Amino acid sequence: KDDTKKEIMKYYWTSLHTTLANYPSLPTLHERNTLYHYVISSASLFPCGDCSIVSQKLMRKYPPQIGSRKSALTWGCKIHRKFNEEFNLTVPTCDDIAASYIIGS
Amino acid sequence: KDDTKKEIMKYYWTSLHTTLANYPSLPTLHERNTLYHYVISSASLFPCGDCSIVSQKLMRKYPPQIGSRKSALTWGCKIHRKFNEEFNLTVPTCDDIAASYIIGS
Ligand SMILES: Cc1cc2nc3c(=O)[nH]c(=O)nc-3n(C[C@H](O)[C@H](O)[C@H](O)COP(=O)(O)OP(=O)(O)OC[C@H]3O[C@@H](n4cnc5c(N)ncnc54)[C@H](O)[C@@H]3O)c2cc1C
Ligand SMILES: Cc1cc2nc3c(=O)[nH]c(=O)nc-3n(C[C@H](O)[C@H](O)[C@H](O)COP(=O)(O)OP(=O)(O)OC[C@H]3O[C@@H](n4cnc5c(N)ncnc54)[C@H](O)[C@@H]3O)c2cc1C
Repeated sequence: KDDTKKEIMKYYWTSLHTTLANYPSLPTLHERNTLYHYVISSASLFPCGDCSIVSQKLMRKYPPQIGSRKSALTWGCKIHRKFNEEFNLTVPTCDDIAASYIIGS
Repeated sequence: KDDTKKEIMKYYWTSLHTTLANYPSLPTLHERNTLYHYVISSASLFPCGDCSIVSQKLMRKYPPQIGSRKSALTWGCKIHRKFNEEFNLTVPTCDDIAASYIIGS
């Protein structure tokens, strides 16, 4: 049960950070809207109940930064760190996140 | 390069099918909207260029079925199969997909 939750988190964060790492540096208005909807809806649909509640709460407090790849990645790191704090998990640095959760980097 | 793409696909499909498996049996209108936005935006943001083009094309042809968990899972299986056909990859059955891409089942 706990392993399932850990694996769900691993998939969630890998998908999110890998998506942010491939987001355009200079996104169009349409691309910004798409990223915004994607991250907000991914939090509601997080396939683990308390993960979903915590990530929705964090996204209300720290809204998705969709202005550029750089700001999106920085925001993704912040959200992941705050999330791990809430669950008393090891809090990774942004470099740890880039190394462990971005496929192909 | 090819391994990166394979791994990106694995993360994409695992996140999608696991999300669908945890979607409500009787979703509210709000939940339907959220799933619809999630899957449409996930296709645009698929962090692999030709995967993104193919999945967007498939989602135009086979729109997300968001009426229930059952119809969403059936739709997810169909999209995955059509996607693999386009990339000349082994086409899994819906049972293969449930066994390999749904965490915790
Ligand atoms: C449909 C939708 C709904 C949204 N709803 C909300 C909401 O309810 N609340 C909310 O807060 N946000 C919301 N957002 C997000 C919001 O629009 C922006 O992402 C966010 O406010 C910052 O975007 P930005 O374009 O200013 O780019 P940023 O991401 O802020 O800027 C890009 C980069 O430039 C840098 N930068 C920006 N300005 C300067 C400056 N003056 N000097 C030096 N560097 C600078 C930043 O540090 C960043 O690294 C929403 C977005 C969408 C698409
Ligand atoms: C914002 C938004 C935009 C959308 N845009 C589009 C679009 O452009 N094009 C598009 O095609 N769809 C679109 N959809 C999706 C569409 O609304 C529905 O998902 C889809 O048409 C079927 O939904 P349904 O509620 O009828 O449920 P379904 O998923 O069809 O029904 C649930 C289950 O009941 C079964 N069932 C349904 N009716 C019967 C019946 N009469 N007898 C026996 N079994 C039955 C189904 O087989 C299924 O297993 C959109 C959805 C949203 C939220």
